[in-house]
Amino acid sequence: MTSLVPPESIKPFLDSYLPQPKPNGLPFVTLTYAQSLDSRISVAKGKQTVISHLETKSMTHYIRHFHEAILVGIGTVLADDPKLDCRYFEKASKKHPIRPIILDPDFKMRSLYNSSTMKKVNAQKPIIFIGDHVVIDEVIELAVVPLPLVNGQMRWMDILKALQGMRIKSVMVEGGAKVINDLLVYEYEGKHVVDSLIVTIGSTFLGSQGVEVSPSRGLELKDVSWWTGERDGVMAARIG
Amino acid sequence: MTSLVPPESIKPFLDSYLPQPKPNGLPFVTLTYAQSLDSRISVAKGKQTVISHLETKSMTHYIRHFHEAILVGIGTVLADDPKLDCRYFEKASKKHPIRPIILDPDFKMRSLYNSSTMKKVNAQKPIIFIGDHVVIDEVIELAVVPLPLVNGQMRWMDILKALQGMRIKSVMVEGGAKVINDLLVYEYEGKHVVDSLIVTIGSTFLGSQGVEVSPSRGLELKDVSWWTGERDGVMAARIG
Ligand SMILES: NC(=O)c1ccc[n+]([C@@H]2O[C@H](COP(=O)([O-])OP(=O)(O)OC[C@H]3O[C@@H](n4cnc5c(N)ncnc54)[C@H](OP(=O)(O)O)[C@@H]3O)[C@@H](O)[C@H]2O)c1
Ligand SMILES: NC(=O)c1ccc[n+]([C@@H]2O[C@H](COP(=O)([O-])OP(=O)(O)OC[C@H]3O[C@@H](n4cnc5c(N)ncnc54)[C@H](OP(=O)(O)O)[C@@H]3O)[C@@H](O)[C@H]2O)c1
Repeated sequence: MTSLVPPESIKPFLDSYLPQPKPNGLPFVTLTYAQSLDSRISVAKGKQTVISHLETKSMTHYIRHFHEAILVGIGTVLADDPKLDCRYFEKASKKHPIRPIILDPDFKMRSLYNSSTMKKVNAQKPIIFIGDHVVIDEVIELAVVPLPLVNGQMRWMDILKALQGMRIKSVMVEGGAKVINDLLVYEYEGKHVVDSLIVTIGSTFLGSQGVEVSPSRGLELKDVSWWTGERDGVMAARIG
Repeated sequence: MTSLVPPESIKPFLDSYLPQPKPNGLPFVTLTYAQSLDSRISVAKGKQTVISHLETKSMTHYIRHFHEAILVGIGTVLADDPKLDCRYFEKASKKHPIRPIILDPDFKMRSLYNSSTMKKVNAQKPIIFIGDHVVIDEVIELAVVPLPLVNGQMRWMDILKALQGMRIKSVMVEGGAKVINDLLVYEYEGKHVVDSLIVTIGSTFLGSQGVEVSPSRGLELKDVSWWTGERDGVMAARIG
């Protein structure tokens, strides 16, 4: 496998948004996704859609390289059967290990994992966050972390604390729509938990039937920077 | 009044997207608007919202300078009471005249115009496209062009031909949501009528309650370029 190497100019642009140790010990959270101009992340629920150009795809792998874990909702696994690995590496012999984390209250991964591409290509086994109502009465080869559900939802702070307990110091949250929309507005004790936001904007419209990113309320950003490539724009910022 | 002068670097970026004579004699159509990351052009219907930074606001006036007319729907007039003038000029003595064009099937402008900011500040009287059902039985000081409505809608080609008849060679379409969403996907004899698309993306989220731009179907763009400023990204492209 060859390394996906991003354009050199992306590196200094990303520099100040990459994970750093946090004083409160919680994992550093990078939220990142690729959208169309009309803020769609796929043409329809369950339809994997190429939005970003190769240069920004390679950027995603470059950013993953600085993270210990990569988190998605089960909706993304069902839609895209993603690899959730890191295909940027500096020495061919040394692939950067990255741990997939999946929010999966009903533990759909139980039946999905064995035939998943993730299992085939990713040496790191995923950690699955499941609802604490799920009964596990068999031997499973997956790491599951039961969390209480409030109105059917795991709380983001429970997720982050559980990751902290596992000594995961940085997590890259990549989607899908529900995870992104929730996390954009989630606050704990009046503070946002997202440390860096990196949005790729592909120069295309996916149309109103697409899966949309738009949080339930407005949001101000700070420390905004842009990088632009051949077809895509990338905005990096902090929230709040 | 002082001229709104954009950053120098915007000028070469915009160059190839500015109006040129068209072989078919129709007006050159530039579609332009400012949106949030989540593709909203205002926080709520009827609420004027500042999305773009001063540098891109001045860009809008710079682009207007190359156009003979500026078109909006009546929804935008009701929401924003816009000036629809051009505040970029090279000699203080010589303001660039730009003609406001308003799509207003029920002729709401009849009662609105006298108290509008447009009337106060803009020496150019607007041209109002109205439905051909509207009865005008009084002396009015506005230029109205009656057009047939098909399912309550004027056809874009009728509008463009009427503008051509008035010898208007370029029109900058600035909104609002309905006008943008319709025009993005409108085709006449299999061809798009938009010649240049210039979208400003402000680094903010307006939230899902906002007024959204997303056409009814997906759309490919070509000849894409990006310009980025302090807070905003600007994408220019052609459709199709
Ligand atoms: N362009 C991009 O960057 C990108 C990236 C990723 C995905 N996508 C697209 O996004 C679409 C999928 O979006 P989506 O909204 O369906 O998927 P998603 O956010 O990946 O998954 C949503 C599901 O995850 C679980 N979940 C998420 N947050 C939870 C929480 N706090 N507590 C408990 N469960 C939680 C729920 O599972 P249950 O339903 O089991 O309750 C929920 O329905 C796909 O079309 C995919 O292609 C695009
Ligand atoms: N950020 C930006 O760049 C920007 C720019 C402009 C506006 N805006 C925002 O956009 C919002 C307004 O959006 P909007 O969708 O309500 O306004 P709009 O597109 O300006 O106006 C829509 C109205 O115009 C008439 N119209 C438009 N196309 C027509 C056609 N083909 N045939 C007949 N009539 C047509 C109809 O009037 P009738 O209702 O009388 O039938 C229609 O309801 C406001 O909140 C404003 O602030 C933002």
